[in-house]
Amino acid sequence: MLSFSISGSYTDLYELSIGEVNFLENRHQSAVAFDYFFRKIPARGGYVVFAGLTDLLDILETLHFTKEDIDWLRWQKFNSTFIDHLVDFRFRGRIWSVPEGEIVFPHCPIVRVEGTWLEAQLVETLLLNILNFESLIATKASRMRYVAGDRILSDFGLRRAQGPGGILASKAAVIGGFGSTSNVYAAQLYDIPASGTMAHAFVTGYESELEAFRAFARSRPEGCVFLVDTYNTLQSGIPNAIIVAKEMEKQGQKLVAVRLDSGDLAYLSRKTRAMLDEAGLQYVKIVASNQLDEHVIKSLLEQQAPIDIFGVGTSLVTGAPDGALDGVYKLAESDGKPRMKISETLQKATLPGTKQVLRMIDDQGHFFGADAIVLQGEEHVSVIHHPFEPGKSLQVTGFKQEPLLKVVMENGKRIAPSPGLTAIAQYSKERLALLPAEYKRFEYPHIYKTSISQQLMDLRNGLIASHKM
Amino acid sequence: MLSFSISGSYTDLYELSIGEVNFLENRHQSAVAFDYFFRKIPARGGYVVFAGLTDLLDILETLHFTKEDIDWLRWQKFNSTFIDHLVDFRFRGRIWSVPEGEIVFPHCPIVRVEGTWLEAQLVETLLLNILNFESLIATKASRMRYVAGDRILSDFGLRRAQGPGGILASKAAVIGGFGSTSNVYAAQLYDIPASGTMAHAFVTGYESELEAFRAFARSRPEGCVFLVDTYNTLQSGIPNAIIVAKEMEKQGQKLVAVRLDSGDLAYLSRKTRAMLDEAGLQYVKIVASNQLDEHVIKSLLEQQAPIDIFGVGTSLVTGAPDGALDGVYKLAESDGKPRMKISETLQKATLPGTKQVLRMIDDQGHFFGADAIVLQGEEHVSVIHHPFEPGKSLQVTGFKQEPLLKVVMENGKRIAPSPGLTAIAQYSKERLALLPAEYKRFEYPHIYKTSISQQLMDLRNGLIASHKM
Repeated sequence: MLSFSISGSYTDLYELSIGEVNFLENRHQSAVAFDYFFRKIPARGGYVVFAGLTDLLDILETLHFTKEDIDWLRWQKFNSTFIDHLVDFRFRGRIWSVPEGEIVFPHCPIVRVEGTWLEAQLVETLLLNILNFESLIATKASRMRYVAGDRILSDFGLRRAQGPGGILASKAAVIGGFGSTSNVYAAQLYDIPASGTMAHAFVTGYESELEAFRAFARSRPEGCVFLVDTYNTLQSGIPNAIIVAKEMEKQGQKLVAVRLDSGDLAYLSRKTRAMLDEAGLQYVKIVASNQLDEHVIKSLLEQQAPIDIFGVGTSLVTGAPDGALDGVYKLAESDGKPRMKISETLQKATLPGTKQVLRMIDDQGHFFGADAIVLQGEEHVSVIHHPFEPGKSLQVTGFKQEPLLKVVMENGKRIAPSPGLTAIAQYSKERLALLPAEYKRFEYPHIYKTSISQQLMDLRNGLIASHKM
Repeated sequence: MLSFSISGSYTDLYELSIGEVNFLENRHQSAVAFDYFFRKIPARGGYVVFAGLTDLLDILETLHFTKEDIDWLRWQKFNSTFIDHLVDFRFRGRIWSVPEGEIVFPHCPIVRVEGTWLEAQLVETLLLNILNFESLIATKASRMRYVAGDRILSDFGLRRAQGPGGILASKAAVIGGFGSTSNVYAAQLYDIPASGTMAHAFVTGYESELEAFRAFARSRPEGCVFLVDTYNTLQSGIPNAIIVAKEMEKQGQKLVAVRLDSGDLAYLSRKTRAMLDEAGLQYVKIVASNQLDEHVIKSLLEQQAPIDIFGVGTSLVTGAPDGALDGVYKLAESDGKPRMKISETLQKATLPGTKQVLRMIDDQGHFFGADAIVLQGEEHVSVIHHPFEPGKSLQVTGFKQEPLLKVVMENGKRIAPSPGLTAIAQYSKERLALLPAEYKRFEYPHIYKTSISQQLMDLRNGLIASHKM
């Protein structure tokens, strides 16, 4: 059986090399702070749904190097005193984070890891791996939820997922608004409602489509959904589904739905609806699948296709078209001193010091459309500045300013249990409702302002100036 | 610790629903054959590298339902006799496959699963999940290897990978031609050379870049690579690297390389090479990273950028721009009868019966550019037909015709040990060398002909005709 356990070796080699150097230089105990943030919103969208915190904290609470990890490090000739140190390695740091499910924007610190240099360095790769991916998928799911309204969205993606990445994808999809998954492993692990229909192979394996439908209705009359496009949707699939649905009625049973999986879904769903209604089967729902994404769903609903349930696979679980959120993990402070990467361009420079994010809330309680990155301890700012274009600033005295980062882990232990997947999804839904529509549209969404406080700007500019001297 | 073990529940729900229906209909023991094939080559390329077979067979040899799986099925109210049957479920089927690492083309069966309907159905999702993903990444890696020639390619992708999908990605990259990985977990699990350099945070964590380099050289003088773009590549990074490299020389040590991670890599690598050479450091290599893919590598080398090692992340491990190979798993036979999905278009119809693939080899030993899908037992064909366009055919009497599908598993056990990752990568390299260049180019590659034999065409057309009556 292939199995994967995320241990200390779930990392890039250089984290261990750097760890060893800092250990031998006796700097591994230095107090540091690292920021997690991203620069670019996937799919040219207007926002990102932050996801993965629960899994990250679960991992950090028990992270260690297994015996195999240690043996491998010895074989790779890492320094033996350093390896001995890793035998007892545990993550004992503090984590600040925005809530899982929060709506977040480029450049704002979303998570801050405080701890010794060694522990903060060793968790970099796994933190990025989990948060980048789950946030990507939650964001993608959220875009589909946005256009699907109250219709049912179900994840059908495991077969096209990136290996076991599919397990996290099915979970993250729920945070973004999906209601169920075909992925039994994820359904079990994360307590997600499982859903599914039937395969073409089931239909072709019987002597006729009618016989296949009858067999299914006989054995699984509850939750029965017929796949109707194996031979010909309108000439064979729907007529046969109607025959069996009427037979089921005589048994006091109800066919739940038919599934369209090829052809023009707008046309076929309208024809299907009419045929079902004509047969008195108004209660039978229509499921549509086949290369769906948020744009196709939007288009189908604009055409008023009478589809009740969308089954989405590849584009959901792989986060197409982008495949990755570009989140990074950058040193902000060490030994109490603010640190930054200075780059030829301000955009690639990082923001020094330990920071907080203040979200501007208007008098309706909605997001105004600006976050201020401030130094830890600044509770209210009156002016915010564009992070990269000097001279652009904005008065924000009138807004409620909501701090987003809170401590979620102390000494390597969560300070409260995870809210659970349903509560996280609900929180995300409520927060997204506070974001004005112009940030949610797909085409050239309005750009949410990420800004910095005067104090942070002064700190950054001072460090750049001192480096240039 | 988050851990994933691929068990019976690593499946779509409908495989279990169908399994239950067939069980209750007493059809679960029917002998069936399913084909795995894909329809579209990712990234508009000319070929696919088949990967994932070793992992698939590893999984199948021990696949079972865990106690948790069984408990969940009971809770989901699956039929209790069926669940009892699943308690003892093992895969006992036969697998035909092309060799792992083989170069493959659309519509050709790559794997055939023969077994009872229940076992063949229950493995569908995991087979697709593993083979689709590993083949996607091996193909992507192979495209980079094709343009990189003999230069070193290293996978740096774990932080941007799709969660634990990154583990399989790092492995599949080796099949496609990568030499090493930064992913320690995959390096350990699959015995891949591990490689890595240093992070910006390491450099910014020291009082100066020079001090950071010196610390690294002191503690890890072997395999030392300096990241030179933290402040300014040409004004700070390279001069400091040269200072420390010269200091290392006095200790009898050699700096291995410098790494460029931002800016114009063609320009910077040329300047860097000149500065290193000027300092007598001809032996110091140049590593380049930062959003590389096969197109960027090709362009850099066309500009004669003196880069020795490419570190590739996101685009490699996520298979960008496509994110998934569209492989499917279709019923070809049951109870000894050929089966097919009949669709409105021939392209979406499947090919019935148990089949073999014959590859046409020219008198130079190269791939001619055509595979013939034939019925099992046909050892040589003289004419091949276009699968979807009636009337298009080709004489192939002059070619050696190499059968690609061989039995690799009998009664649920491999018939030979896996050749191992190195041998698979070597096989793939040798086979790709037999494919003419026009199929390997990135822009509008020549289309490799996938064709069918007269017997297979007759069988298919007969089934379509009988269904239409």
